Formats: sequence, structure tokens, C-alpha cells
Amino acid sequence: MASSQAEKPLILVCNDDGITAPGLRYLIRTMNELGEVVVVAPDGPQSAMGHAITITGILRCDPNEIDEGPQREYACSGTPVDCVKLAVNVVLDRRPDLVVSGINHGSNASINVLYSGTMSAAMEGCLEGIPSIGFSLCDFARDAEFEPALPQVKAIAQRVLKEGLPEGVCLNVNIPKYQGKPYAGVKVTRQCRGNWEEEFDQRRDPRGRDYFWLTGKFARYDQGADTDEHFLSAYYITIVPVKSDLTDHQLLQDWKGKELTFDPE
Amino acid sequence: MASSQAEKPLILVCNDDGITAPGLRYLIRTMNELGEVVVVAPDGPQSAMGHAITITGILRCDPNEIDEGPQREYACSGTPVDCVKLAVNVVLDRRPDLVVSGINHGSNASINVLYSGTMSAAMEGCLEGIPSIGFSLCDFARDAEFEPALPQVKAIAQRVLKEGLPEGVCLNVNIPKYQGKPYAGVKVTRQCRGNWEEEFDQRRDPRGRDYFWLTGKFARYDQGADTDEHFLSAYYITIVPVKSDLTDHQLLQDWKGKELTFDPE
Repeated sequence: MASSQAEKPLILVCNDDGITAPGLRYLIRTMNELGEVVVVAPDGPQSAMGHAITITGILRCDPNEIDEGPQREYACSGTPVDCVKLAVNVVLDRRPDLVVSGINHGSNASINVLYSGTMSAAMEGCLEGIPSIGFSLCDFARDAEFEPALPQVKAIAQRVLKEGLPEGVCLNVNIPKYQGKPYAGVKVTRQCRGNWEEEFDQRRDPRGRDYFWLTGKFARYDQGADTDEHFLSAYYITIVPVKSDLTDHQLLQDWKGKELTFDPE
Repeated sequence: MASSQAEKPLILVCNDDGITAPGLRYLIRTMNELGEVVVVAPDGPQSAMGHAITITGILRCDPNEIDEGPQREYACSGTPVDCVKLAVNVVLDRRPDLVVSGINHGSNASINVLYSGTMSAAMEGCLEGIPSIGFSLCDFARDAEFEPALPQVKAIAQRVLKEGLPEGVCLNVNIPKYQGKPYAGVKVTRQCRGNWEEEFDQRRDPRGRDYFWLTGKFARYDQGADTDEHFLSAYYITIVPVKSDLTDHQLLQDWKGKELTFDPE
């Protein structure tokens, strides 16, 4: 038994919606079909935490049991990136073969990749040199329909387990909200240009002081027919290969030709 | 007076060490020489917050006055990215011509760009379509010597004010710790590959429960002579052009040639 366990790939599962989120449960269930699963997930909601880590406070990481599956589970008091760091350095006694994060309740397409705790957990796995994937469903509802996408989630994870990923690259997978019919397919594509156009909701508290709620809507600035937003609109599941090297290498080349100087006059 | 004010460039100053940090004061002083300065900075330390934003709680943003300069200042209860969003959407009555963030106490070279609140504030300015720069000094000390780098900080900001930056690109500027002699110069370069090798410090609280402190040291995986870490070691100030599009376009091309499918069998 111990040796057959050891032969199975080790899969680390994380998310940003917290350890009780339904999307995480669907991901655990699917990964249980592919390997030995260890879950290290935030003990509460950590959406939109980006690549934040906890450096001024302490971290807790305690065993947890939410459902009956074969996975081991830990609830962590920190951010999604803290979860991956704790998993790799404290919880696991060997290197995971795969890090999967999600399934997020809500889109992480376009520039949401920057704000997303789900994708930051995948990016952290990638920095550790482990093949890593973030999965997101474009549906914020707690009872969103995750089930119809699970065959594709499994196929993508299976392929990455088998073939790995190039160094410094992880995958940002987004799944359209289910519309009662089979998905159109899976497209490897690029990150759409866009931005959140904010409208802060200004209110006054019972003591007469102003405060703000961040609100806003996503604006797509890119009508290209080769972006994640384009294919999501066409009911495709999208995969964007995401780099941890943020350098604009093209611009670097252009600038080198120009002998730029930034020294003071 | 009002009209001569209006002709000056408007410069938004932010940071992640908080509104009372000395590094921010040096940046304000330098920017006051270049334009009309508005500061919107966190009301406390927000280091390593990455691109986190506040979506489950409220935000405060109140006028503040720390020193005697001509700048207007606001302290914000949120993250560095919240500060930029509040500045652009609530505080400012016109679009800033430049966003500068820092000067951070500590390096944001290599992959620190991902964790850094300083650089995330610059990235947020970039997403808003505003030329944006993050400045960091590789010295964590509260009384670090910022003064010797201010001529270069000013020259870089001046050049970006004059020439702008390409869409979707901001600058990550790192300054070596001062060694009592003039800096070797300024180099435009690429992000070094590396990672934080964590060692969690496990302790037991007074009630007998375990907790953890995140510690660790940076490991450089890249001995290239064209990286930010390389030039910082050689006492150069480094500039990395950083992209908001994280797509690995090269890999996307390679994969297209291979007709990859990720559909289930």
C-alpha cells in the first residue's frame, strides 16, 4: 500500500476562495482521480490578494477535514501564496509533481491574472519549479455549475502531469459560465488587454466619517480574435501560458539599439 | 498662481512602506522639483502585498500632513494598489502625468517584482495608461542613505515625463545600497531568475499551539551578465521594463505549430 501510494503523482491543491469553497471541492475530487492529493488552502476568503505574502504577522497551518475523500487537508491562516510556501516547505515530505489552484469562483482572464490569488498560487508553484495550473470558472455564484468542465480540467492536468511545462511558465485556465450545452472546446491563447474601470461607492459611517467601497466593471480594450476574452465569449475554455519573467524583452532590444542613458545631466 | 500650477505636470506618489516611511519623503522631495505632487500612500506598512486589492472590506482615504512641502497628502487604509485606484478615481481631478512609487526600503529586483507592493502600485498606474515607475533601494534600514541616488531618481522621472513609456510597460528601478562612492551608472537590463528559499521558523504559542514565521533567503539561479542582480552587484542602478501582459508569446507560437489539444479523450 505504501509503495503503490509512493508511485502516484503528488498533487498540491490550493485556492483563494478558502478551504470550504465548492470550487475547491470539485478540484479535489477531480485530482483524486489522478494522484495523491494534499490540500493547503486559506482558512477564509483570500480573493484578490494577488501575490501577497505574510511577513509582519504569524501563520497557522492546521490539519482539517471537510469531506470523506482520500486527500489530506490543511487550513492556513495566510494568503494563497503563503499556502504554497507552507505546503512545499513544511507540510509535504516530497516535492509535488503538480500544483493546481482553484477552481476559482469568477473569471481570472485578461489582467485579472495580476489581482488573482488563485493565479498567484499557481505562479508561486511555478517559481518553485513545479508544473502549475490555475483554474477559474467565470461564474461568481456559490452554487455555480463546475461539473460540466471537470473532464477538461482533468485532461489539462493529466497532460501537464505527463509532459511538464517549460521553466518559468504556468497556465491560466478559464472556463465560461455553463450554458446548458457542451463547451465549444479548449483554446491556447493570449491575455486580453483591458482594465477595471472603478467607481468607488462613497458612504458615510454612523460617526460621520466618509469611507469607500471599491466597485467597477471590466473594460475590454482589445478586440483581437486571439485573446482569452474573445474565446471565452465564444464559449471556449481558454489556456494562457503565463510567465514569471515580467521583462519586456522586445523593448529591451529596441532600447539597446538607441544607446539610452538615464544618468543625470 | 492657479494657471501656473495647472501647467506643471501632475505627479502621483505612492509606496508600500506607508506614509511615514523616510524613502517616501525623499521621493516626494525629488518630485516636488518636477511638478505638482499628490501623495496617496498606505496609512501603515503594506510591504509584500503584491497586487492585492480590498474587496471584502471598506477603504478610508483621509487628508494628511507630514511635512512642510507643497504636496497634498492622503493616507489610505488599503493596499498600494488601492491607493492608486483611489487616487485616480476619487482624489485627483485630472489624470496624473506620472505615477512614482517608493523609494522602497529594500530590493525589488529579480522575482521580488511579483511580491512587491511598490511595484504593484507602479503596475496599477501602468494599467491605467499612465507612465509609471517603482523605485527601490537595496537597503532595509529605516535610516538608509537615499540622498546619493536622488539625482538619478530625478533624471529617470524627468525622462519618462518627457518621453512617456510604451503602452503596458512600467519601470522597475533598483538602487544598490550606498557604499560611500558615486554609483557606477544606470543600466537598462532584464529580470534575473531566482527564488526565495524559505525556512519557516516554527514556534509554540503560550497556549501550546504551533505557528510559523516566514523567513528565507534569496537564491540567484541565473549567472547571466545582463540581469538586474548582476548589475546591482556591480554597483549600477538598474532599470527593468516590466510588462502587464504576462502571456508567454514565444511559447504560444511554439505550441501553435504543434496543434496541441487539451480536450478530454
